[in-house]
Amino acid sequence: MDRQIVKPSTLPGFLEWLPADQIAFNKMMDTIRKNYERYGFIPVDTPVIEKSEVLLAKGGGDTEKQIYRFTKGDTDLSLRFDLTVPLARFVSQHLGELSFPFRRYQIGKVYRGERNQKGRFREFYQCDIDIIGNGKLNIINDAEIPSIIYSTFTDLGFDSFTIHINNRKVLNGFFDSLGINNKMETLRIVDKLDKIGMEAVKGELKEIGLSDEASTKIEEFINIIGSNDEIIEGLKALNIENEEFVLGLEELSQVVYYIRQFGVPDKNFAIDLKIARGLDYYTGTVYETILNDYPGIGSVCSGGRYDNLAEYYTTQKLPGVGISIGLSRLFFQLKEAGFFKESTSSTLTKILIVPMDENMSYSIGVSNELKKADIISEVYFEGGKFAKKLNYANKLGIPYVIIIGEDEINSGVLTLKDMVKGEQFKLTVVEIINKVRNS
Amino acid sequence: MDRQIVKPSTLPGFLEWLPADQIAFNKMMDTIRKNYERYGFIPVDTPVIEKSEVLLAKGGGDTEKQIYRFTKGDTDLSLRFDLTVPLARFVSQHLGELSFPFRRYQIGKVYRGERNQKGRFREFYQCDIDIIGNGKLNIINDAEIPSIIYSTFTDLGFDSFTIHINNRKVLNGFFDSLGINNKMETLRIVDKLDKIGMEAVKGELKEIGLSDEASTKIEEFINIIGSNDEIIEGLKALNIENEEFVLGLEELSQVVYYIRQFGVPDKNFAIDLKIARGLDYYTGTVYETILNDYPGIGSVCSGGRYDNLAEYYTTQKLPGVGISIGLSRLFFQLKEAGFFKESTSSTLTKILIVPMDENMSYSIGVSNELKKADIISEVYFEGGKFAKKLNYANKLGIPYVIIIGEDEINSGVLTLKDMVKGEQFKLTVVEIINKVRNS
Repeated sequence: MDRQIVKPSTLPGFLEWLPADQIAFNKMMDTIRKNYERYGFIPVDTPVIEKSEVLLAKGGGDTEKQIYRFTKGDTDLSLRFDLTVPLARFVSQHLGELSFPFRRYQIGKVYRGERNQKGRFREFYQCDIDIIGNGKLNIINDAEIPSIIYSTFTDLGFDSFTIHINNRKVLNGFFDSLGINNKMETLRIVDKLDKIGMEAVKGELKEIGLSDEASTKIEEFINIIGSNDEIIEGLKALNIENEEFVLGLEELSQVVYYIRQFGVPDKNFAIDLKIARGLDYYTGTVYETILNDYPGIGSVCSGGRYDNLAEYYTTQKLPGVGISIGLSRLFFQLKEAGFFKESTSSTLTKILIVPMDENMSYSIGVSNELKKADIISEVYFEGGKFAKKLNYANKLGIPYVIIIGEDEINSGVLTLKDMVKGEQFKLTVVEIINKVRNS
Repeated sequence: MDRQIVKPSTLPGFLEWLPADQIAFNKMMDTIRKNYERYGFIPVDTPVIEKSEVLLAKGGGDTEKQIYRFTKGDTDLSLRFDLTVPLARFVSQHLGELSFPFRRYQIGKVYRGERNQKGRFREFYQCDIDIIGNGKLNIINDAEIPSIIYSTFTDLGFDSFTIHINNRKVLNGFFDSLGINNKMETLRIVDKLDKIGMEAVKGELKEIGLSDEASTKIEEFINIIGSNDEIIEGLKALNIENEEFVLGLEELSQVVYYIRQFGVPDKNFAIDLKIARGLDYYTGTVYETILNDYPGIGSVCSGGRYDNLAEYYTTQKLPGVGISIGLSRLFFQLKEAGFFKESTSSTLTKILIVPMDENMSYSIGVSNELKKADIISEVYFEGGKFAKKLNYANKLGIPYVIIIGEDEINSGVLTLKDMVKGEQFKLTVVEIINKVRNS
């Protein structure tokens, strides 16, 4: 054909996985979804495209530059850049139709036109949960969130991870007690501690006008370390009478108390006075989650408590608490770090049925029996040599092959080949079902 | 706050569901996915955004007008309008890394800037499977596809549906035998029969230059009805020697033979000589699926065999066969038609735990036990009157409530309220788990 061939390729920053990786990716996504559902979160699926006027109601900042924004006809459209703004829009739009506290999860793709660099993607999955109160929301919800992180990451196959917890009110109140005016800026600088070190932090604090005394007090404050109980005792011992500090400390104590009630072991969560989360809408509890065997990945699940979800869409006060897992990035980083060690398969099929001659009906019958027993199977219908057919199973990583020739059809005893161990067995369909089920 | 409120709203043609519908929608999507996986299809997840040059390589036609196409920087981007073109791109791009026949499924959103009208959406889910051969692909694959449709729609809760089957070669060969030159145009007109009736079809055939004799022969041809075997006999009795017709009839006979081998009952599939599928890339078997209790919806699952998937991206010949379920439209239409009769719930939660006082620890402990037993539960942490708490369960459709007061904590015997029947029981946690599991 005299057709011009276009070279098939995807856009830079847009991921797609080959089957083995896609299967592993889906398994992680399913585990996350199952955990979110287990805790009573309700699925929401908002459109990827929203009115720019609505999506960018908050406006300003780096966000706007990264947006995929365009027009179709007279309409100004934008692709969602996170799942929080669409949640705010959704909750405000359907306020009368929802029950509060509204526990929703959403798993979906979001879009950011970031500078193209390794491990940063322009299309990526976020997996979010949020609990939204109408007017108010009990602090115990802030303690339930870490139990969901714990359950999720345990199910994902990690045992050594730490959920870092802090409270913005503790930080703000403490800064206030030192007479610091630009508390938000101070917070942002302290939040960089792990990245830039104490000396650099002190330098930046000086630049924004903090006294050496304030700076030293901040250093002492951050150096309150130890067990969760020891840190709480350390904070109490500061005897700070600032109202916000006292409230924050009370919240933090309650969160620690209830996290334990929810069954999270102390080894998996730690008060960390350094973390603040950059986003300015957090107002209380904040979370970061570190995989201790892969600290370089950074936080794999972050979030916190906010006072008001949807102030751009409604006058109703909607406090909430939530977290997000950036799954595409996490998967990419875990893959790079060699996390997926098991021999991965490029298919979900457990048994390939290989007919030795043209008569396919018997093989189809066997396949029907296997499907009824919930064993994923397929028949190799194509022609070619036996080795080619076996190679199909090998290349995909199908663990078992059933070979069906005239003898097998006559006797009803089939040849089952274990592709991993290389062993062969003579078995009936029922025996094969039992063997494969228990393997 | 002196903030300007933006009215929260979504774009016309962009669906989002409230929780009860979203849960029902997800259940359908999960059922489809499970069936696709059961037949050994491998998941693929391509980006929503592709290079316009690649996505529109075929170009032309109505498609291009409907595309969401825009630029970001210097890059010309388009949102996918189906999952077939991305599959063609994916397979050509990763040709050496895939095993053939390549059985892939993809479930995802696609975008078409259609005229806004009821039941037509600009963002909607497609659920596709395709089997792609390298060079050739056995006709038995064409017979397996209806067995997947059968399994899927049975699992979705339908029993009365008919998979209509035809073969383009039969139609083309027949038209050829009548000396018709513009076979494609004839095909398109015949395909409209169900919509416009025989008289209008004959009128249109006359307009494109067909003789009255040819038109009458076509009418007689279409009137070959009866059981699947009778139709095949009727076609054979025509004694047409045209090579394409003979090949098509042989394919159709084989497909019918093997559909039965795959266990699809005759009541669920029917040769239908009227159907052709408008898209010009089908070259053999074609499918349409009609829900007999909802004929107004039209075909809910369509597809067919094509000679060459990816001629715009590779010179490799890749024949295939596949189907697509337009899930968003199907769900919308079923909802409109009153299909979802059961009382739908707005949550996945099975038990709401209502603490009667401020001490939440005991309730959290009960919730932990229920989660371990895989029963989705949540604790109502918020304050307020008892009636308000019960109303939360009622409004969401949570079937059970556990009430925990001082007596319950002291005795370990809890009050379980069946919210549907209104009955109350005094039970231990273990007894509750057994009761709810078996309900």
